[in-house]
Amino acid sequence: MRDEFRADLQIVSQLLVDMAEGVRGALRQATTALLTADRAAAETVVAGDAEIDSLYRDVEERVCDLLARQAPVASDLRAMITALHVAADLERMGDLADHVAKTALRRHPSPAVPAELRPVFRDMATIADRMAEEIASLLAKPDATLAAQLDSDDDAMDDLHRSLFGVLLGDDWPYGVETAIDATLLGRFYERFADHAVNVGEHVIYLITGESAA
Amino acid sequence: MRDEFRADLQIVSQLLVDMAEGVRGALRQATTALLTADRAAAETVVAGDAEIDSLYRDVEERVCDLLARQAPVASDLRAMITALHVAADLERMGDLADHVAKTALRRHPSPAVPAELRPVFRDMATIADRMAEEIASLLAKPDATLAAQLDSDDDAMDDLHRSLFGVLLGDDWPYGVETAIDATLLGRFYERFADHAVNVGEHVIYLITGESAA
Repeated sequence: MRDEFRADLQIVSQLLVDMAEGVRGALRQATTALLTADRAAAETVVAGDAEIDSLYRDVEERVCDLLARQAPVASDLRAMITALHVAADLERMGDLADHVAKTALRRHPSPAVPAELRPVFRDMATIADRMAEEIASLLAKPDATLAAQLDSDDDAMDDLHRSLFGVLLGDDWPYGVETAIDATLLGRFYERFADHAVNVGEHVIYLITGESAA
Repeated sequence: MRDEFRADLQIVSQLLVDMAEGVRGALRQATTALLTADRAAAETVVAGDAEIDSLYRDVEERVCDLLARQAPVASDLRAMITALHVAADLERMGDLADHVAKTALRRHPSPAVPAELRPVFRDMATIADRMAEEIASLLAKPDATLAAQLDSDDDAMDDLHRSLFGVLLGDDWPYGVETAIDATLLGRFYERFADHAVNVGEHVIYLITGESAA
């Protein structure tokens, strides 16, 4: 019974790693779509979101099934509730990649982001990508130092987010309100992606240490 | 055992109603802060968010405790997992009210929203308030017609959100980029508040019917 439970939990864990890799790939492609007005990349992301959603449902069903079949002890219970939280964060990260891709599509064939803003979005995307990689590693093998790294990445993301507003609010912003609105929303999508990655890190740490970061 | 379980689930249910009423009150006050540059109202919302977060933790702990103490049957299990989802949505709705209040504070004593945009924000707030009221009722007494009402409210919210962009992108927008950025983010906060309310409705419907809306 106990071995069977471990094996089932291992499957859930692998599904979460798959989700993390899926959302990482989605945001990479969405960023390509955004920065190079690549329609095919954007469409791949939008079509692929259903797969991430389906992994999410799979995690939920397996956790519910496990809870129903077994009478888990407290620590196992904590692992399962954590899996539900992590899956919800990852599902939302997939939505945010989808929003980036849809913004690129809405402006296609024009680029949604003017040349001046591409460096800041490229940097935000690099950090987001690293964070997604870190949570995939963390889910495969819990590690408190990696979870701490997520916090410093998130600080870097917040700095970039502020510098984005600096550009938008500069006296010499030449692109008008529509482009500023797009950039505002895009900035928020990357920043929220990072927030959810931090949440995942906190959930995993809670699982290791039993202590909440809050 | 079964009666005790019912009583515990009833407590969780009441906590969710309290959360729904809490986020409703928070968004009402945040809107007042926004539309009348009322500093005290904004500070009340920001200070009150901790209480909503604390209710959230309370729901989580009680559900975990229930899962650990009892060996719930499938339908009870579904109710508990639903409670976790609903609590997470409500917690996020509280955060969004907090974001609205903080935007008002950041611009205080200037109004964050210029006169031209106040009607659209007032309408968005009215719909958001009705949706929060509906989910509080729904959580107290599940009702499929009320859940359907949430969808039509959400459509109205989306229409208002689009009309907001119409104003921002009009040839005669006189307020510059900074005000447009604030309005863009504020619009998103109200729209996301409504999305989470719809999620809550879907979770409750799933609980009644066993059928997912997706």
